[in-house]
Amino acid sequence: MTTRGRFIAFEGGEGAGKSTQSRLLAEALTARGLDIVTTREPGGTPGAEALRALLLDTALDWNPKAEALLFAAARSDHVETLIRPALAAGKWVICDRFLDSSRAYQGGAGGIGDEAVLDLHRIGSDGLLPDCTILIEVDPAEAAARAHARDGDAADRIGAKGKEYHAAVRARFALLAKQDPDRFARIDGDATADEVHARIMAALAPLMEGA
Amino acid sequence: MTTRGRFIAFEGGEGAGKSTQSRLLAEALTARGLDIVTTREPGGTPGAEALRALLLDTALDWNPKAEALLFAAARSDHVETLIRPALAAGKWVICDRFLDSSRAYQGGAGGIGDEAVLDLHRIGSDGLLPDCTILIEVDPAEAAARAHARDGDAADRIGAKGKEYHAAVRARFALLAKQDPDRFARIDGDATADEVHARIMAALAPLMEGA
Repeated sequence: MTTRGRFIAFEGGEGAGKSTQSRLLAEALTARGLDIVTTREPGGTPGAEALRALLLDTALDWNPKAEALLFAAARSDHVETLIRPALAAGKWVICDRFLDSSRAYQGGAGGIGDEAVLDLHRIGSDGLLPDCTILIEVDPAEAAARAHARDGDAADRIGAKGKEYHAAVRARFALLAKQDPDRFARIDGDATADEVHARIMAALAPLMEGA
Repeated sequence: MTTRGRFIAFEGGEGAGKSTQSRLLAEALTARGLDIVTTREPGGTPGAEALRALLLDTALDWNPKAEALLFAAARSDHVETLIRPALAAGKWVICDRFLDSSRAYQGGAGGIGDEAVLDLHRIGSDGLLPDCTILIEVDPAEAAARAHARDGDAADRIGAKGKEYHAAVRARFALLAKQDPDRFARIDGDATADEVHARIMAALAPLMEGA
């Protein structure tokens, strides 16, 4: 019998270092002999990537409710087509953003409310939650500088929203982590990539016992 | 003060004559001096038309939950961008398919349940309902012949589903109409287009009093 794999999600605002840390974690777990799938949201499957393109298209001005529905649809495709089958096959799935991004962006900052986002996740993905959600928290000015160094002036439709919006997102992530301390690991991201990676490995130690 | 317009939706299976009757109704109401907007679902706005293309793409095999979320997202964009503003401006909106198609296809035949579809509509479109929903009911064999005459073998992803699926859709439409007789007008569509049009005009008489 194959043991079910583990599902680890990275969360945080723009420029928090999620992609870098996701890659470093995948390398570390692969080195331990685990079978790793790295993926991201929105996206990860052909259908969800097609929705990602529509969501980030600056020419389409989705209202917050439509935006939340589209993220939930992309997540449903991603969960049913990729994440659940990988977990069932014993793989470890590392995902750059998941449900809590929808809760922080569309539920909190976007204004449709947390309950509606959770309803959509229940309908679309039977409420699947990560085994561990790693929230990387960085100084806002540092995060903005990193995101700008990466994207220049070519920020996408969501990245281009104002400072107040991103502050609301950050506050909402912190609140979600406080409400569910067993699932969340809050990681201080104001350090070198290697130092942050070491903090993440320490936080994941309980999950890796026996793996 | 502008009087709010009226919202009329056409529903029924493939080949029921919805597009033809939608056009005939628009012509008749325009001749009476009403300001008419004709539209369709999924679609009606640039965002929703982009989603329509993804929904009907035979290369993307959406699961029923993702499909329901995508229809709700397209509807949210359509309602907020086109339908509500038109109604507020005193226009009459004639829409080829609306919520009840989702209830019949994804809620009934597709299997995610009516409650979930209504939840999605509440979240996405604040539960907007038509003032009158015209359900055109035709003999199944006749409908299949009409749909085939129109589409040939190039049926889209939903049109291509089997006979049993379409029978379940038809039964679900009838059930919805029975549950909400004040909103629904059930129209026998087994007649010439002009005869069916006359039946629809008779059914709409109460809505047009004073218009």
